[in-house]
Amino acid sequence: MISVKEAKNIILNTTQDFGVEEVPFIKSVGRILKEEIVADRDFPPFNRVSMDGICIDFKIFQTEQRAFKIEGIQAAGNEQITLQNSENCIEVMTGAVLPKNANTVIRYEDVVIKNGIATIAIDEVFDFQNIHKKGKDGKFGDTLITENTKISAAEIGVLATVGKSKVKVAKQPKVMIISTGDELVSVAENPLAHQIRRSNVFTLVSLLESLKIDSETAHITDDKAILKQKIKMFIEKNDVLLFSGAVSKGKFDFLPEVFEELGVEKLFHKVAQRPGKPFFYGKTANCNIFGFPGNPISTFVNCLAYFYPWYYKSIGIEIKEETAILTKDVSFKPNLEYFLQVKLSYKFGHTLATPITGNGSGDLASLVHADAFIHLPNDKNEFKKGENYPIIRYRL
Amino acid sequence: MISVKEAKNIILNTTQDFGVEEVPFIKSVGRILKEEIVADRDFPPFNRVSMDGICIDFKIFQTEQRAFKIEGIQAAGNEQITLQNSENCIEVMTGAVLPKNANTVIRYEDVVIKNGIATIAIDEVFDFQNIHKKGKDGKFGDTLITENTKISAAEIGVLATVGKSKVKVAKQPKVMIISTGDELVSVAENPLAHQIRRSNVFTLVSLLESLKIDSETAHITDDKAILKQKIKMFIEKNDVLLFSGAVSKGKFDFLPEVFEELGVEKLFHKVAQRPGKPFFYGKTANCNIFGFPGNPISTFVNCLAYFYPWYYKSIGIEIKEETAILTKDVSFKPNLEYFLQVKLSYKFGHTLATPITGNGSGDLASLVHADAFIHLPNDKNEFKKGENYPIIRYRL
Repeated sequence: MISVKEAKNIILNTTQDFGVEEVPFIKSVGRILKEEIVADRDFPPFNRVSMDGICIDFKIFQTEQRAFKIEGIQAAGNEQITLQNSENCIEVMTGAVLPKNANTVIRYEDVVIKNGIATIAIDEVFDFQNIHKKGKDGKFGDTLITENTKISAAEIGVLATVGKSKVKVAKQPKVMIISTGDELVSVAENPLAHQIRRSNVFTLVSLLESLKIDSETAHITDDKAILKQKIKMFIEKNDVLLFSGAVSKGKFDFLPEVFEELGVEKLFHKVAQRPGKPFFYGKTANCNIFGFPGNPISTFVNCLAYFYPWYYKSIGIEIKEETAILTKDVSFKPNLEYFLQVKLSYKFGHTLATPITGNGSGDLASLVHADAFIHLPNDKNEFKKGENYPIIRYRL
Repeated sequence: MISVKEAKNIILNTTQDFGVEEVPFIKSVGRILKEEIVADRDFPPFNRVSMDGICIDFKIFQTEQRAFKIEGIQAAGNEQITLQNSENCIEVMTGAVLPKNANTVIRYEDVVIKNGIATIAIDEVFDFQNIHKKGKDGKFGDTLITENTKISAAEIGVLATVGKSKVKVAKQPKVMIISTGDELVSVAENPLAHQIRRSNVFTLVSLLESLKIDSETAHITDDKAILKQKIKMFIEKNDVLLFSGAVSKGKFDFLPEVFEELGVEKLFHKVAQRPGKPFFYGKTANCNIFGFPGNPISTFVNCLAYFYPWYYKSIGIEIKEETAILTKDVSFKPNLEYFLQVKLSYKFGHTLATPITGNGSGDLASLVHADAFIHLPNDKNEFKKGENYPIIRYRL
C-alpha cells in the first residue's frame, strides 16, 4: 500500500498531451490557452480622451487665457480632427482620439459653456491630463496573455480587443466513465428491494463538466467476458477511463484481472487513505485508467485528489494549493491519511474548516452539507483546532 | 452621489422572481434547486454489506466456533438469500443485501478459506460489523437537499439516487447586453486608427456564462432615435438589460435621456467608487437596467459588485462574503471606495491579496494579472499590510 504522495507522484509522471485545437474565442472560457496573445497595435492605439469635456493646447492655458472658443466636436469613433487655432478648443468625448495640436482635456464639470465659449473654472490643470496615452498599457508586439493561462472573462476582453476571433486551446481528453455492479439500475427506474440507482457515474460526469470536459458513460454487468470485450474497445477509443467500483476484493470484482489480461500496466492498487483506499491506477500506451472504489464518497474524493491534478498537469496548468484552519479538534486513529469533509467559512482573511461527520464512505447525502475535503496526514492521530491543512474544494 | 452600500441596498430591494422550470437532473449543475429533495426509501435501503468477505450469525461466533462451512454467495444485485444453518456462513460482496439470519461480516483479509470452509483468523469481531445499516444515513421521507441549494456534483449524486431524473430549478433571467459607441468595430474587423474592437459585451457574456446565464448581445450606434426605438423593444422582451458605455456626460451619451423618455424609473446614477463611478441603475415594471460605464474595468467590476448580488438574491441564494489580507500598504487619496485588483495566494489558512497596479480603468490587460478585487472603504486613505478587507473573486 502506497502513500497519497507516492500515488500522486506516479499519476503526475504519467500525464498525457491531448494536443491543441482552435475554438471561437467566446467559447474558450475555462479552457487553457495554447498560444501567446500579443498586442496587434499599441494600447490604447491612439491618445485616447478619458473624460467628456473640452481639449486645449496647454501652452495657451499657461498664458492665463481661460475662455476658449469652441471650434468643433471630436466624437468617439470619428477620425482625428485638428485644433486649427491654438487659442480655441474642441469638445471631446470619452473614447475619442485626442485632436491634433491639443494636449490637455478639461472635464465638463470644470467648465462653463455659454454662447460657444468654454470658460475654464479651475486653476489646477496639467499637461496631458485626462488623456490615456497611446501605448501606455502596452506596445505593439507586447505579450498580453501568456500560454497556459486558464481563460476567464478577463482574458475574453483582451482576446476581443486584439481581434482573436479564434483561439488555440488545449484539446480536452476523451473520457469514458464506466460503472459496474449488478445492483445498479437507471435513475428513471424503480429499484427492487436489493437494488439501488446508478449515481457515481453522474457525479463523475458533473465533476468533469466543471473542468469543461464532456464525457460519455457506460454500464457493464458483472460478467468477465463482457467486461473484457467492452473495456478493450473503450481503451482503444479513449484517452481516459474512469471506473467506479469492482476494484475491491469481491468475487465479482473482475476489473483487476481483466486489466491484466488486456495488457494494462498496473501502477498501483490501494492507497493508505480513507475514504478511497482500494484505488487502482494503470495505463496502456494511449489510455490512463483510474479505477475508483465504488463507494460514493470514495469515487468523489479520488476524482478530485487524483484525476483533477493529472488533468491539470496534462494540459499544462498549475493550481495553487489552498489551506484552511480547523474549527474543532479531530481525532482519527487508523494509520491512514484522512480526507475529511468540511464546511468552509471566512473570517478576517482566514478560511475556516468545520468538520462534517457523515456515516462513512457510503453516505452520499453527507456531501451535500460540506464544501470541501481537508487532507489530514497520517503522522499523528490528533488534529487540533487552529491547525491548518490543505483543502480540496468542490463547491464555491 | 451615493455610497456603494446605498447602491447595493437599492439594487437588492428591486430583485425579480424569474419563476421555476424543470430540467433533466444531469443538466442542473450550477442551477438553484427550487424543490425539496426527500428520500424515496431508507438510505441505505437494506442492510448493506460494506466489505467483501463472509457473513455469519454473531451468536455462533460467541460460542468460540471459528470454522464455518460456506453455504452460498450473496452478490450485489441479487435478491436476499437466507443463511439456512446458523453454524454456516455465506460469502458476501460489497453492495449486497445482508442475507437473512446473518448479522456480522468478516472481511476476506481476516479469513482463511479452504475446501469450502472459512476459518476466521481474528478474535476481535463485533455484532453488525461491516454492515451499513438500513436507514442509517436517512429515513424514508427525510429531507436530503433543501430548496435554494446551488446544485454541485455532490447534489447530482443524491438526485440520481432518489430517482429525480427531472428537477425543478430557478429559471434564468432573459438578459440582453448592449454596447454603444461609434468607435467600436467587431472582433473580426481591422479597426481604423480611431476605432477599437468591441470587448466589454463579450466580457459580460462570459461573466454571465459563469452563472449559467445565456445572454444575447446587440450593438446600437450613437443615434438617439435608433437607440430609443431599439431599447423600447429590448425592455419589452427582456428581464434585464446590461449596457456598457454612454451613461457619462458626453454629448452622445444619450442613454439617460432615452431612459427617461421611455419611462424607466431612475434609481441612481453615480456611485462614490473607483473605478465604475458613472453607473446608472433604473427599472421599469418588468425590466431592470444596469448602465455600466464604458471603461473595461468599470464594466467588469460593476457586473461583479452589483449584477451578481442582484441575481443571487433574485434566485434565492446567499453568497458567503470572503475577505483577504493585504500583503502591501496601499494609499488611496480620493474620497471614493476603491475596488483594487489583487492577485490571491494562500498560506496557513490565510488568503493573501497582493495589489496589481494597472493604468486606470481603461487598462483591460491588467485584469489578466489579477484574480479578484479587494474592496477598500473610503473612511481612510491608508490601508496597511496585514489588514483584511472583503474581496470579489473572478477567477479560481
